[in-house]
Amino acid sequence: MAKALILLADGTEEMEFTITYDTLVRAGVSCTSAFVPAHDPTKETSTFTNPPFAKGSRGINILPDSYFSPQESTPDMYDLLVIPGGAKGAKTMSSSSPIQHLVREYLQQDKFVGMICAGSLAALSSGLSKRPLTSHPSVKAQLEKHFEYLEDPVVVSGKLVTSRGPGTAFPFALTLVELLCGKEKRAEVAGPMVFPPGTFA
Amino acid sequence: MAKALILLADGTEEMEFTITYDTLVRAGVSCTSAFVPAHDPTKETSTFTNPPFAKGSRGINILPDSYFSPQESTPDMYDLLVIPGGAKGAKTMSSSSPIQHLVREYLQQDKFVGMICAGSLAALSSGLSKRPLTSHPSVKAQLEKHFEYLEDPVVVSGKLVTSRGPGTAFPFALTLVELLCGKEKRAEVAGPMVFPPGTFA
Repeated sequence: MAKALILLADGTEEMEFTITYDTLVRAGVSCTSAFVPAHDPTKETSTFTNPPFAKGSRGINILPDSYFSPQESTPDMYDLLVIPGGAKGAKTMSSSSPIQHLVREYLQQDKFVGMICAGSLAALSSGLSKRPLTSHPSVKAQLEKHFEYLEDPVVVSGKLVTSRGPGTAFPFALTLVELLCGKEKRAEVAGPMVFPPGTFA
Repeated sequence: MAKALILLADGTEEMEFTITYDTLVRAGVSCTSAFVPAHDPTKETSTFTNPPFAKGSRGINILPDSYFSPQESTPDMYDLLVIPGGAKGAKTMSSSSPIQHLVREYLQQDKFVGMICAGSLAALSSGLSKRPLTSHPSVKAQLEKHFEYLEDPVVVSGKLVTSRGPGTAFPFALTLVELLCGKEKRAEVAGPMVFPPGTFA
């Protein structure tokens, strides 16, 4: 069974998080969410000043399955690492050096990394080399000098899968299902979700 | 500012809940989620045997904004009542006589009621008269004798708005935005969500 680690922080876009997690679970992927605390610049290291749940970007509070630990997040433990968007949550994740290190390690070890919306900023902060990617339009200016910037709903570039926003979260999640579990599983999962004719399935 | 009450229970489909809540918040609608405890048949009345969060149908745990109380859920307090799907959560809601009463009261007082997926079973349990509606295909057989059953992604029938599943949750939520806040607000909200060309916007 494939395994996915999906990061969660205060300010995470809760639709992007939920659509990715739920759709992967429907495909039989074992999903673990991990809460990443915001770095407090007045302290030497990140501390759990946050409450024990993530406050989503539009106010939905989600309890994480676990608390982020670099040692428990390695590419030998998971097949996929997901960095969702939401400006504040994506900033917390992309500015974390342990997460930057994990992004590089996952790709080096041929494991999948998914980034959606402002989550794509982690490609920049992790120092990935020039490759095709996409993101939310609001962070395009930061990314287009360093990457081959595309505006497709989902961009698959080797093991890096990027996407644009809540409106592309279903094709993003279904693409991850297809890459981890195959085309048939994608169709099997999409059917009962009842997409309007001509979209995503 | 328009106000929406969005019900939440153990087994609620977390994408349908989250997409509706988040999209309405983006439109400036004040959203309150209310946790509906499952009825324990061994007790005379529903009790809070549940933990203080809702376990979604695919395992995402969501903290509600409030606990459901019929007195705090009346149509003079909200413009919209939403009943999301997820088989188990929808069963809890649709079999609750206070919720059945509220569904009738909202419609009688010309307030909106949204039902998606198995949530449409509440139209049946509330004893609504024959009218056009839709639902998840899995509960079509229970509904088609009593209603004018349609297979459109979203069906607006007076103040009752019904939809089919996670795959139609965005058009469902955007239709509710349009009905509460107008066509321009719908377009303003849909833009930054970055739907693929040709879908929903």
